[in-house]
Amino acid sequence: MQKQLLLSGLLATASLCAFGQDEKIDQQMMQKIREEGLQRSKVMETAFYLTDVNGPRLQGPGFMKAANWTKNKLAEWGLQNARLESWGEWGKGWEVERCYIAMTAPYYKAMIAVPRAWSGSTNKLQQAEILYISDSDTTALESYRSKLKNKVILIDQSFTGKPSFKADADRFTDEDLAKMAAESPAGGGRGGRNGADSTYRNMIQAMRTRNSFNQKMRKLAKQEGALGILNTTQTSKDGTLFVSGDYANAALGSTQDDLADLSISMEDYMTLCRLMKANVPVKLELDVKTKFHTADTKGYNVLADLPGTDPKLKDEVVMLGAHLDSWHAATGATDNAAGSAVMMEAVRILKALGVKPRRTIRLALWSGEEQGLHGSKNYVTKHLVDANNKLTKEGENLAGYFNVDNGTGKIRGIYSQNNTEAEPVFAQWLKPFHDLGATTVARRSSGGTDHVSFDRAGLSGFGFIQDRIEYDTRTHHTNMDTYDHLQPDDLKQAATIVAAFIYNAAMRDQKLPMKAPVTAMQSAR
Amino acid sequence: MQKQLLLSGLLATASLCAFGQDEKIDQQMMQKIREEGLQRSKVMETAFYLTDVNGPRLQGPGFMKAANWTKNKLAEWGLQNARLESWGEWGKGWEVERCYIAMTAPYYKAMIAVPRAWSGSTNKLQQAEILYISDSDTTALESYRSKLKNKVILIDQSFTGKPSFKADADRFTDEDLAKMAAESPAGGGRGGRNGADSTYRNMIQAMRTRNSFNQKMRKLAKQEGALGILNTTQTSKDGTLFVSGDYANAALGSTQDDLADLSISMEDYMTLCRLMKANVPVKLELDVKTKFHTADTKGYNVLADLPGTDPKLKDEVVMLGAHLDSWHAATGATDNAAGSAVMMEAVRILKALGVKPRRTIRLALWSGEEQGLHGSKNYVTKHLVDANNKLTKEGENLAGYFNVDNGTGKIRGIYSQNNTEAEPVFAQWLKPFHDLGATTVARRSSGGTDHVSFDRAGLSGFGFIQDRIEYDTRTHHTNMDTYDHLQPDDLKQAATIVAAFIYNAAMRDQKLPMKAPVTAMQSAR
Repeated sequence: MQKQLLLSGLLATASLCAFGQDEKIDQQMMQKIREEGLQRSKVMETAFYLTDVNGPRLQGPGFMKAANWTKNKLAEWGLQNARLESWGEWGKGWEVERCYIAMTAPYYKAMIAVPRAWSGSTNKLQQAEILYISDSDTTALESYRSKLKNKVILIDQSFTGKPSFKADADRFTDEDLAKMAAESPAGGGRGGRNGADSTYRNMIQAMRTRNSFNQKMRKLAKQEGALGILNTTQTSKDGTLFVSGDYANAALGSTQDDLADLSISMEDYMTLCRLMKANVPVKLELDVKTKFHTADTKGYNVLADLPGTDPKLKDEVVMLGAHLDSWHAATGATDNAAGSAVMMEAVRILKALGVKPRRTIRLALWSGEEQGLHGSKNYVTKHLVDANNKLTKEGENLAGYFNVDNGTGKIRGIYSQNNTEAEPVFAQWLKPFHDLGATTVARRSSGGTDHVSFDRAGLSGFGFIQDRIEYDTRTHHTNMDTYDHLQPDDLKQAATIVAAFIYNAAMRDQKLPMKAPVTAMQSAR
Repeated sequence: MQKQLLLSGLLATASLCAFGQDEKIDQQMMQKIREEGLQRSKVMETAFYLTDVNGPRLQGPGFMKAANWTKNKLAEWGLQNARLESWGEWGKGWEVERCYIAMTAPYYKAMIAVPRAWSGSTNKLQQAEILYISDSDTTALESYRSKLKNKVILIDQSFTGKPSFKADADRFTDEDLAKMAAESPAGGGRGGRNGADSTYRNMIQAMRTRNSFNQKMRKLAKQEGALGILNTTQTSKDGTLFVSGDYANAALGSTQDDLADLSISMEDYMTLCRLMKANVPVKLELDVKTKFHTADTKGYNVLADLPGTDPKLKDEVVMLGAHLDSWHAATGATDNAAGSAVMMEAVRILKALGVKPRRTIRLALWSGEEQGLHGSKNYVTKHLVDANNKLTKEGENLAGYFNVDNGTGKIRGIYSQNNTEAEPVFAQWLKPFHDLGATTVARRSSGGTDHVSFDRAGLSGFGFIQDRIEYDTRTHHTNMDTYDHLQPDDLKQAATIVAAFIYNAAMRDQKLPMKAPVTAMQSAR
């Protein structure tokens, strides 16, 4: 019977309630939240400022500009104590000031290119020849030492174009959701970003395989005065680049040798490889200018509160968050202006409705997520756990953390992160939103983003199930992660449901159930 | 019964033969052609030279370089009288020598951009502000006159990004082919490039709607010393640009005012529009350099022959052709290096097999197709019809013309172009290739490319049914029309089938049936 219910895409709320208790849900408030969130939404206006107006929000000045705008906007909306809080030392900030590369022989072709983060510069427009490296064995590297000066390095690849017979975008079907709801953590669901999608995993794998050789090549190239090095990935298609960066160069002690480290489209890259293999003389011109910033080398989170009003509960804090930082090839629209705008919109909705939460509601917009969850990790260690990994008083008062960071897709449910006692609670909280497509509680531990910082410390941190849309195929860490790839109706729905969850968590008589400690959970299996 | 057969994707060969006669097909030769075409193919090598090595083949110097290479390659393969033949005056040649544009405020963002063909230059790297024009009424234009100097013009658009829930690429299903085979010309099939696809039609419609205003704006902008004008299309997605050009500027009498006429990605364009609407100050820098050529203003086709050997038939000519020219945003891989490489490969296969054709086989690689079928049209008027549109002796000796210009997709059959008597012949010629997916004879008159020049003159000109792959969604006239978007197996199959058709047409006792004159055909309905 459970399976039948699951197959319909709905969780068996009634039977699960046998394990928990009936949730008191303020249906009138749920209706008000829907109206504010779906009919008077400001989520796209917020997203516009975070993307088009602000630009990339890479750790450093791009992030800081957005953080300040966000802090001011939250204060304008009436949140209390909107603030930037340093989470510690980060390193150098970095920005692109010019990026141009073209093939000039055998004919002219401007390329689609983005410098990898913390890349150096060419200092001016330079004419250059290619040094084509077909070796992949690091022992062969020394033989190139004398040939590197003023060259642009091209490492042989054998990628091939494949037309897209599968759509870039999709949504979870009822069957997908039922399958997810039926999983036990042992049966799969180790999480990750939409773990079912192989594109992301393949990309990571390909990057790792190349990394050792490329890192050594890059080091040698810098030493010997090469002008630049070109990169691409097999996942690059149709001029869409997957770009991240070498953040070892952000370290305060690192020296910036001027090597332009450029991602270019697979199509341009493979044209160069084929021409070099066929011994066709190729010439390039390039002008790459980047800027390192050291005025403020600390990292910051944005925090703002809706203070609790119940004397007995107001020290307890319900948190919601998303990382505000992004990679830099575009404006980080789906990763993660989407999540940031949704979380800001959720607190705006509650504030607009004049909600008086019993517990304190705290919004956190993290930074340094892309380089290793720095903002959220440091928040947890600074506030919620002590040096022995025991919960502090503040940690004991955390009444749940909710995160959005899976792109622009609407919410289809929530991952319980193996918190089985929270599942019947969430199932009831979702009920008023079944008609908006949010139906499913999955036991899976989702990963790869900031709720993991809470989860790892034994705190209740949750991520939502979101429709994938084009996340893994087109926008995630790419030059196409722009405002035009956001889905307004999806973001409105997501903000509405998050607002409802936060409201419920703040008003509930008890704190959300904590997850059983890992050891107890494991012995229970 | 016919319907049942059609539904299986096969043409009712037996019943159709009642109207024609049995074709003598040399099955052994068909097998040899398959082996040469599928196992010893050079089609991708040819395509590599036409695309990666040659670059864009826009009417002018880009085309001429490819034409000379092609002429020499055909001669090297042993074809007779490989030659360039002028088809008349064209106008100025044009090339891009530099293309760079970036937003420099409110933050830095290099854009994906390609100058429209016959665009002017900025002469050097220029800093510029945008003049944002939200009017669409040409009467408002005068009010901008004094504001244009040194500005880059951005005309308001309201395009929005839409994620791709439909795959870019597809192939014809058995049902699609059956439907096509069942059509009478009256029942649809006015032809065009894969007429079923609405993307191409919408693009054309949107372009026309904008054209009147934009043309007038461009003229005023040139007069008043604007630096540039930006363009995009709703069909632009994921940084893929649909780019053609204003070939009025190619006319010998035209003056080149230096206005950089740039296509940029929809994502970049809409970001600029949204920022301007929100009154966010935007700055650009751009460096566009183009070059006009007037040393040789004539247009040329490439021609080469496999001379006929039957004394009674050798004056008759079976032609195959494709346009070798392309637009310039990429290397015209699917439009139409694909068709050119396939046609070259078809004659290479026949030459490699030592075929002694009874009729003469003539390969034609046209130019000026993209600007109005100039090469093929002029060939027809110069050789095949006289001033009164009557067939010349040479026209009477034409034993059929076959064209490939629908992208990289394999051949699924042939459009009879309403030549009902040819249908049973083609049905039999396709039979040895049913296992390769080529099954269908459709009555539809396909259009939009060079066989139309023959068809309009009452000559037997045919185009093949090809799988669409990504033609209308991603490659046709775009910056993504590159070698990596070619499908090797599809092109090998296409060359094999074309070689077989050409062989059959050259060896047949009778010339292919001519189409009934239009008037007779119409009165017969």
